[in-house]
Amino acid sequence: MSDFSPGLEGVLAARTMISMVDGQNGRLVYRGYVIADLAEDMSYEEVAYLLWYGQLPTRSQLQEIADKLRAKRHLNSAAEAALKGLAADTHPMDVLRTVVSAQGATAHLAKPDIEQAIANVAAFPTILAAFHRQRKGKEWLAPRADLDHAANYLYMLTGEEPSAERVHALNSYLVLLADHGMNASTFTARVIASTDSDIVSSLVGAIGALKGPAHGGAPSLVMEQLEKIGGPENAEGWGREALERKERLMGFGHRVYRTYDPRAKILKAMAEKLNPTFYALASKWEEVALRLLQERHPERPQATNVEFYSAGVLQAVGLPTDYFPATFGISRAAGWTAHVLEQVSDNRLIRPQSEYVGPEPKKPVPLAQR
Amino acid sequence: MSDFSPGLEGVLAARTMISMVDGQNGRLVYRGYVIADLAEDMSYEEVAYLLWYGQLPTRSQLQEIADKLRAKRHLNSAAEAALKGLAADTHPMDVLRTVVSAQGATAHLAKPDIEQAIANVAAFPTILAAFHRQRKGKEWLAPRADLDHAANYLYMLTGEEPSAERVHALNSYLVLLADHGMNASTFTARVIASTDSDIVSSLVGAIGALKGPAHGGAPSLVMEQLEKIGGPENAEGWGREALERKERLMGFGHRVYRTYDPRAKILKAMAEKLNPTFYALASKWEEVALRLLQERHPERPQATNVEFYSAGVLQAVGLPTDYFPATFGISRAAGWTAHVLEQVSDNRLIRPQSEYVGPEPKKPVPLAQR
Repeated sequence: MSDFSPGLEGVLAARTMISMVDGQNGRLVYRGYVIADLAEDMSYEEVAYLLWYGQLPTRSQLQEIADKLRAKRHLNSAAEAALKGLAADTHPMDVLRTVVSAQGATAHLAKPDIEQAIANVAAFPTILAAFHRQRKGKEWLAPRADLDHAANYLYMLTGEEPSAERVHALNSYLVLLADHGMNASTFTARVIASTDSDIVSSLVGAIGALKGPAHGGAPSLVMEQLEKIGGPENAEGWGREALERKERLMGFGHRVYRTYDPRAKILKAMAEKLNPTFYALASKWEEVALRLLQERHPERPQATNVEFYSAGVLQAVGLPTDYFPATFGISRAAGWTAHVLEQVSDNRLIRPQSEYVGPEPKKPVPLAQR
Repeated sequence: MSDFSPGLEGVLAARTMISMVDGQNGRLVYRGYVIADLAEDMSYEEVAYLLWYGQLPTRSQLQEIADKLRAKRHLNSAAEAALKGLAADTHPMDVLRTVVSAQGATAHLAKPDIEQAIANVAAFPTILAAFHRQRKGKEWLAPRADLDHAANYLYMLTGEEPSAERVHALNSYLVLLADHGMNASTFTARVIASTDSDIVSSLVGAIGALKGPAHGGAPSLVMEQLEKIGGPENAEGWGREALERKERLMGFGHRVYRTYDPRAKILKAMAEKLNPTFYALASKWEEVALRLLQERHPERPQATNVEFYSAGVLQAVGLPTDYFPATFGISRAAGWTAHVLEQVSDNRLIRPQSEYVGPEPKKPVPLAQR
């Protein structure tokens, strides 16, 4: 048995052709392409194709995948029933977890394939948009086949055709967060797939993992902290007090990156352009927070992570604050499904060991004598 | 970075006080008690208490936990809506995954606690029993507060008060499968909990992992294979042909045990007594299958696993064949929740690494030139 590495830190859990998180050099690579080269011009559909098939699509391949995605945006009756039953104040991640499970509930266990990957990726925005309408007392909107993945999500949320600038920003966000090595939710999806379970079970597990504030649950919390700070002039004071209270500063630190997260860098530039009010406060707070963290924990490498500037971009796009983690899920669905397909292509049950540190075996005392 | 161990075989992922799988000596220990000492006389409620609190309950503690479990058996409106929306032929594991998620959908992220553990364990049988009634075109039955966990499940399925013999058999099964070290579903639950997500997300992920035939999905498949074999006289011929077809023989082999699985031993004795028809065929098939597997793979230790005789016991109890994996889930819910509580009591994000083996970074060719 190996030594115990808490949190499996540094333990190699898979070999993957899908993405590389180069923490030392601050690079994220999808299937041989650096993320900065994909975020500006590629559509989410192109990048999903890349993650699934291992190469960028030709024009006709892109048309085909986009058509398939459009054709799978509708909810089935099980999903509709589950959605209608959810209270208006339900956490959007719980909505996604429940309705993805209902939409994918079937009679037979199916081996994961790319058609299922497409169908699931297509349905995520519809589920979330319909719930947002529902909680506002509005009718669900049917998806629009003339809009791509990013634009259709915004349309289904608002009922208005979104501006090109917003669509571009959301699309870039979706591309930037679509995959990221062996993060906790992707790892969850692979563990589930390794039991020969189905793709829906993998996705539902991954959504549950992404919900955690130590993983994807942070961007909404970044916004909450910025609201509490109020203005750049309060950053230093609020930060010192928060650290005294042992409060976690949201949007900082990452298990892997030892330099600036390349996604955060791109999102920061986007936030500066799209959301100047947010940027003025956030960039000041970033500077203060990194300095305070450095003072307190000089031994820890501290860096702004992807959640921090995500918040400003998604706010500029017009998404409700509590939809930030679920929109992360919309993006990561491409990566999750790609990893499930890779896992089942050469599968082995992921079944680690535990060390028992409980009491030595003894005979139980019967209930009458306890 | 460590060496790569496919499937994380032999990798230590947690220290736990909850259970020990002693593969060399064929022992399973819950919190200091050998499983054979618990399976005969302890109620599932007692064992759940043991797994959660680390010690056997006194009489009044047992009364209290049993009362709490009884009080939490009802479904809420979100669960009812999700359940009603599911088609009659839905896979019972998909039912459990979806309705547990709906029942646990809430407005705020809550840190896992024992009250949530109790509420979830209490609801699993109600969900599955209601679905079984629904798919038969019958009304759901309200839980009966005068029946314990095992008896009430059988009552809610059938509408009849089950015999003491059936209740005892089901209770023993539920005790035997309630925990088992770092199996894939428990590991899934802990990975999800490690992101600071909630207990429901952990359970929903665990259900998805348990669904896989390489984990908990096997007992229904054991029964299917026995039906195909038909009678003891066909065992040898069918087995040889199945191996020729490269079919997996269900109910054999385990990552950890190198001797007879102690749970299988107890379940075998129960099946012999409760289900003689099954036992006549199954015990002959076991002997043949182990011999054929030994011939083909002399290097692999082959042993009958817990799924094999589970099938005969659950059939004798009167459960529908397709409910065997979900009933495994009813049992394991105690272990899953105990592990989630242990994980969050001293948490660290479970975030292993992957090694990138894809193409070296290059510049993308623009779409127009592809």
